[in-house]
Amino acid sequence: MELGQQVDPHAACASVDVALTRVFELLGKRWTGLIVAVLTQRPSYFAELRRAIPRISERMLSDRLTELADAGLVVREVDPGPPLRVSYGLTEAGQALRPALDELGKWAERYLPESGLCVEGDAC
Amino acid sequence: MELGQQVDPHAACASVDVALTRVFELLGKRWTGLIVAVLTQRPSYFAELRRAIPRISERMLSDRLTELADAGLVVREVDPGPPLRVSYGLTEAGQALRPALDELGKWAERYLPESGLCVEGDAC
Repeated sequence: MELGQQVDPHAACASVDVALTRVFELLGKRWTGLIVAVLTQRPSYFAELRRAIPRISERMLSDRLTELADAGLVVREVDPGPPLRVSYGLTEAGQALRPALDELGKWAERYLPESGLCVEGDAC
Repeated sequence: MELGQQVDPHAACASVDVALTRVFELLGKRWTGLIVAVLTQRPSYFAELRRAIPRISERMLSDRLTELADAGLVVREVDPGPPLRVSYGLTEAGQALRPALDELGKWAERYLPESGLCVEGDAC
């Protein structure tokens, strides 16, 4: 590929899409996208989310859920019980991320080999 | 929304999609998605990328480009010049992220209000 020749110094300056900037302020944080992906399956209790996402800490999950609630993607529901339990689900805005997540999943199946994921200590 | 009632404790455990886990190992880092988004427009020099992405540091951009190259999404091309310049472009795998980025952009246009982006000191 003769990449260098495709760069035109006189072209208008490249600039990043403002909508995508907003997306990645949110999804460009570790775990956020995965939490949304799990919740697209069904609402879940905190402990279920922790089990579904290997290696996430309790503190991190809690922080990310708060950010997602502030951004209007996640709702927190208290089930009075007993036992009292808190579950998390997606709002309409959160559910609407599904087509984008599906595209990302398809892309990864094709272009990100599984071996790239292995981290020392993992079974892979 | 009666969210609590939708949680079925006897349902199979939720688990995160392995392909999406790989995606967010990559895109769940600050700036990575935006760098790819800029490069979908055209190959760019390092300085152009810095200008296109407000607030990214030189070090951070360099680290992220290295990670993207390691993941097979970005290629680095040296233009012998003079002046000698290095440009960055997307591989086929990188370009193939475009449909997913388009979906994310459409989602943000609809569900992430612009005001959510404002950071102290920014003009917004």
